[in-house]
Amino acid sequence: MAQSNASARSELQGLFAPRAVAVIGASRQEGKIGHSILKNMLGSGYRGTIYPINPREEAILGLRAYPSLSKVPEPVDLAVIAVPAAAVAGVVEECGLVGVRYLVVITAGYKEVGHEGLVREKELLAAVRRHGMRMLGPNCLGLMDTHTPINASFAAGFPLKGEIAFLSQSGAVCAAILDWSLQVGLGFSKFVSLGNKADLTEVDFIRNAALDAYSKVILCYIEDVVDGEAFLETVREVGTKTPVVILKAGSSQAGARAASSHTGALAGSDLAYEVAFDQAGVLRARTMEELFDLAMAFTTQPLPAGDRVGIVTNSGGPGIIATDAVEARGLRMAELGRETVEALRKGLPPTASFYNPVDVIGDADDKRYDFALSHVLADPGVDSVLCLLTRPAGIDPVLVARAIVARRREYPDKPVVAAFLGGENVAEAARELAAGGVPCFSFPERAVTALSGLARYRRFRERDDTATRPVAFPDVDRETAAEAIASARRDRRVVLLSDECAALMRAYGVPVVPSGLARGPEEAVALADGLGYPVALKVVSPQILHKTDFGGVRLGLESRKDVMRAFFEIVENTQRYLPHAAIHGIEVQKMMAPGIELIVGVSRDIHFGPLLMFGLGGIYVNLFRDVSFRLARGIVWSELEAMVAQTRAYALLKGYRGRRPADVDAVIDTLGRVATLVNDFPEIAELDVNPLFAYERGEGVCALDVKITLSENARQK
Amino acid sequence: MAQSNASARSELQGLFAPRAVAVIGASRQEGKIGHSILKNMLGSGYRGTIYPINPREEAILGLRAYPSLSKVPEPVDLAVIAVPAAAVAGVVEECGLVGVRYLVVITAGYKEVGHEGLVREKELLAAVRRHGMRMLGPNCLGLMDTHTPINASFAAGFPLKGEIAFLSQSGAVCAAILDWSLQVGLGFSKFVSLGNKADLTEVDFIRNAALDAYSKVILCYIEDVVDGEAFLETVREVGTKTPVVILKAGSSQAGARAASSHTGALAGSDLAYEVAFDQAGVLRARTMEELFDLAMAFTTQPLPAGDRVGIVTNSGGPGIIATDAVEARGLRMAELGRETVEALRKGLPPTASFYNPVDVIGDADDKRYDFALSHVLADPGVDSVLCLLTRPAGIDPVLVARAIVARRREYPDKPVVAAFLGGENVAEAARELAAGGVPCFSFPERAVTALSGLARYRRFRERDDTATRPVAFPDVDRETAAEAIASARRDRRVVLLSDECAALMRAYGVPVVPSGLARGPEEAVALADGLGYPVALKVVSPQILHKTDFGGVRLGLESRKDVMRAFFEIVENTQRYLPHAAIHGIEVQKMMAPGIELIVGVSRDIHFGPLLMFGLGGIYVNLFRDVSFRLARGIVWSELEAMVAQTRAYALLKGYRGRRPADVDAVIDTLGRVATLVNDFPEIAELDVNPLFAYERGEGVCALDVKITLSENARQK
Repeated sequence: MAQSNASARSELQGLFAPRAVAVIGASRQEGKIGHSILKNMLGSGYRGTIYPINPREEAILGLRAYPSLSKVPEPVDLAVIAVPAAAVAGVVEECGLVGVRYLVVITAGYKEVGHEGLVREKELLAAVRRHGMRMLGPNCLGLMDTHTPINASFAAGFPLKGEIAFLSQSGAVCAAILDWSLQVGLGFSKFVSLGNKADLTEVDFIRNAALDAYSKVILCYIEDVVDGEAFLETVREVGTKTPVVILKAGSSQAGARAASSHTGALAGSDLAYEVAFDQAGVLRARTMEELFDLAMAFTTQPLPAGDRVGIVTNSGGPGIIATDAVEARGLRMAELGRETVEALRKGLPPTASFYNPVDVIGDADDKRYDFALSHVLADPGVDSVLCLLTRPAGIDPVLVARAIVARRREYPDKPVVAAFLGGENVAEAARELAAGGVPCFSFPERAVTALSGLARYRRFRERDDTATRPVAFPDVDRETAAEAIASARRDRRVVLLSDECAALMRAYGVPVVPSGLARGPEEAVALADGLGYPVALKVVSPQILHKTDFGGVRLGLESRKDVMRAFFEIVENTQRYLPHAAIHGIEVQKMMAPGIELIVGVSRDIHFGPLLMFGLGGIYVNLFRDVSFRLARGIVWSELEAMVAQTRAYALLKGYRGRRPADVDAVIDTLGRVATLVNDFPEIAELDVNPLFAYERGEGVCALDVKITLSENARQK
Repeated sequence: MAQSNASARSELQGLFAPRAVAVIGASRQEGKIGHSILKNMLGSGYRGTIYPINPREEAILGLRAYPSLSKVPEPVDLAVIAVPAAAVAGVVEECGLVGVRYLVVITAGYKEVGHEGLVREKELLAAVRRHGMRMLGPNCLGLMDTHTPINASFAAGFPLKGEIAFLSQSGAVCAAILDWSLQVGLGFSKFVSLGNKADLTEVDFIRNAALDAYSKVILCYIEDVVDGEAFLETVREVGTKTPVVILKAGSSQAGARAASSHTGALAGSDLAYEVAFDQAGVLRARTMEELFDLAMAFTTQPLPAGDRVGIVTNSGGPGIIATDAVEARGLRMAELGRETVEALRKGLPPTASFYNPVDVIGDADDKRYDFALSHVLADPGVDSVLCLLTRPAGIDPVLVARAIVARRREYPDKPVVAAFLGGENVAEAARELAAGGVPCFSFPERAVTALSGLARYRRFRERDDTATRPVAFPDVDRETAAEAIASARRDRRVVLLSDECAALMRAYGVPVVPSGLARGPEEAVALADGLGYPVALKVVSPQILHKTDFGGVRLGLESRKDVMRAFFEIVENTQRYLPHAAIHGIEVQKMMAPGIELIVGVSRDIHFGPLLMFGLGGIYVNLFRDVSFRLARGIVWSELEAMVAQTRAYALLKGYRGRRPADVDAVIDTLGRVATLVNDFPEIAELDVNPLFAYERGEGVCALDVKITLSENARQK
């Protein structure tokens, strides 16, 4: 992480804009990768010197070839390596010795081919690090920068100059995006095929692109992140200035981490990505098509001031389809002002629709479109505009396109997108629109998806502008908590006993039900006397997670006699149903008045660390899965509030059907304290408070049952 | 509905294949609709005689023109009317007099322009009916049939001959579909612009297309249905043989019927369409794009035997993206048999992936694709196949396309679709695939959407094959129920009193809690004595719906003294909080043992009649909205079972977390009885059983609280 700091741009400067480049493994033979790279370098307009390295050739593609890097007459910033895997190690060593700073290792045969390759990759990385170099790849397509310009890749094509930085973990997706971009005329600033990400990762390139004056939007295809913490930190910061749109593949792996505990069962690794992207303001594209559509929107459009969409159409059906899409994608149909409606009524034919969607009807020409658009754009109640056109008879759609482009220029702060239906018949008009900065889609729904992406990002930016207090508690007692954990570690236990759980909770200021552990019936009675009746008795055993299922719990015990009898019953039940379970004792708990049953849980994601869960507790957790998630790392108060507010449990807490409101502040406070606890103690693998009782406003909360599991190893991320 | 019977084909024969056609309002002037229609008729290859009708012309487009229909020398089956709205009435009258059987009224200016137009439309329909004619329109684009052939429309183009019957309520969507179909080379059997649907509706054309040997799939764009009952009956029957795919616009109107009662609030009109489509086996396309993609799939592919998809790809990223889509769209990744994996391992390079998705890697040529495809297709564990290709270097995608087409022919029972990424570079290959019957999509996700549409339809077909018993109860007491309703009608009440509700329920065999209505405290005590203690007291007033909210209910009364006191408290509370509420009495109910709280509700949809709702009851109805819906009309047992099984309440009923299973059969029986009741009495506008207690298996159910509201009018649909 230390290497992905604010100096990322200057640090990667020599990668994207090297003064001299060596192509190691350059080849005369067409079809060879080493040939394609050299050809691409030559064709890109690169202004520095290119040195083909090939011991068997005098010259390649008109350039003098050198037998080895050491024979090159000047320092080389970047070496692009396309030799066979077996030869890479020697080449890298040589690069290091002559002072090359950056490597693009195209060669495959590393991590992706199994164990042997992984070993080779580790050795490669060690060599790169030893010489203080940085490396893209191995197993990648290479990189391109249209502003340098440089094409250090074997891709079949070079993107148009533009403002999208694109990173891809798949060479095939790189190729597909490149082909598509050339077809629709969309430009890129950078194009990076990440390959195996042995050294440089998405984090380095996202950070670099954010600092780059040319890149207005960062588009990524990824299958995983290398370092979740660094990724989050980076996109959180970058996202406030530059939109980051990611297609994350592998979502069907969701549930792979389906784990043993309640909490774990609800948390899967795709969920962690979802939560991480949401918290960090990353726009997640659901499909390749959406990735493309969002790219078009972000490079050409301003951010809308709000969610209100105005539609101008020349036909009813597509207008209704677009209206459906507006609501389905979280936007709103603008309500046109009275002045706008009156102006439209005066200027449009009587059978037109003067309300949103504004239907200029089938025979509308460019002038009528322009008239309607001018009034809709001028309406202060309209944040963005969608122009729909179905190929009209006898009207030239190109003229309509030109009118839209011209009128749009007067409102640089309002996004305008179009959907022209009619295939080949509107192709030229679509090109006019695109050239004029109005992306034109083939379907209304995709145009609305593009607008909704802009609005989602605007909401994220706004969210970030509001003051967010980081969650912090000066009153936590870290030593006591550490001691409880150390005690379990000494006993080589990973499941904490209930008194240890209670000690941890109390140390972090979470109220827990008063209780004590009894080893015998008399002790239980003495504890009950001390706590006050009624009490509950619960078996305590590291082997037993669901105590209620077999009679390990007795509630509402009103007298010494009740306690005595319950003690024996529980012991008997436990011995009958779970004869091998070790009974640590019977917990005697004060019976609490019933509150709203909530759950607070924590599981750990391998990439993003502790994942905090909140929702309705008790037996309903698994039935309704009314839960929300946030990453605990760096969490702020507004996120805790939001995670409570987005559950249905919130309706209960606010005072459902005439009941008094519950102590929501205490619930949020508890979430913050639990988050702090698991952030402070990375060795806590799982934590589960279920139920947490929430009482009426001012009466606080109480944790009734707490389970804490430590990681098997003493330290875990 | 009488006119939409099995004779629909022969009945509409003269519309799609008329012996002679008159174009009334035919014009010499280019750009005029009457010109376009005549030109389209001439250009379509129509084999009958065409008579242009125009009193001011001698000849148009080389055809002799006639001053009026009465001057035409032979009988005319079909008249296409494109005269101004004011002249239509006279023309229609003349058509009727000379024995025209079918009208296509292109002319606009009817219902769509407001009240005046609606009156004109009613008069038009009356004239059509009076003369025993049938009419398409008014306000439509016309119709086309590629097999007749005939083009009685003013559309700009004529579709290719094919097997899709397309109906559209929007002329613009017609035009868009036509343009798109010509671009991708997809053919149609019929193309019908429905217009205002004054006489002939979607129902007539769906029925007609189903009987037509040329139409393999029926594609519709609709904004509403004219007759929900006829629509359902038709698509239910048609759908078992011919897939019906509908894009229903106007879903954002959902919630427009947000009504006063619980039940109504959960039921909106788009919900009714959703439920109706699902029950009738209609495939609902969510977007225009999906409508297109499903059309391609259904016209070219067989139905898969199951949900298991095999993928052959030459790159990892798109393979993963497709895998995600497979799971997201309700399909499953096939698990390849050991033989298949071994064969692939032998024949593919070592770095290939021999499991699904099968990755033939970047340098795969047509032979390697063919090899992999042949083994994947042959695997009995694979139901359908997706071929992915990302433009490879040095390989001709056209050859790969040809290999896929050839190999696919050996497996006519397995759908094969493709997604070739690479824009223009794979355009020719995509055309080869399409021509060979393999639809090729530009994105993996769309290809998967197409496969999932086929699988959804196959599931519907299977569902229909299973024996489904219609819901019927010989034991219901219709007279008693009718008397309870009549009694409320006599009092001019639409809200039934609790004893009337109980009578209705009992008459239909739904167990209700034993109770009686007390007018005074002594009567309450006497009733309680008769029922046995404990009892509950509840205020009965037509003005009070949520009794618990202000103290109108007292539960668990153990003695005469309790009953006496509760009676006065309830009366006092009612008078204090709702001084204007009329108290009909206090209901004394036997306290029932608690069961699982369920809700059974009914609301009425204007199109589809009673909408049955089932879910978790009590206070959770609105919180969790854990409810399922079915149309009550023609409901069968398997649908009742499914509507219970799809709720989360079902998990509770089956015996959640160690509890005993509840009497699911009695719950399903109750749903059937409620459905029968509301089917028998169309005057029941709303019905709400909440809670319905479900007891342990064999112990049945009990309705604790029943609300029934009648329609304001004596009869309602």
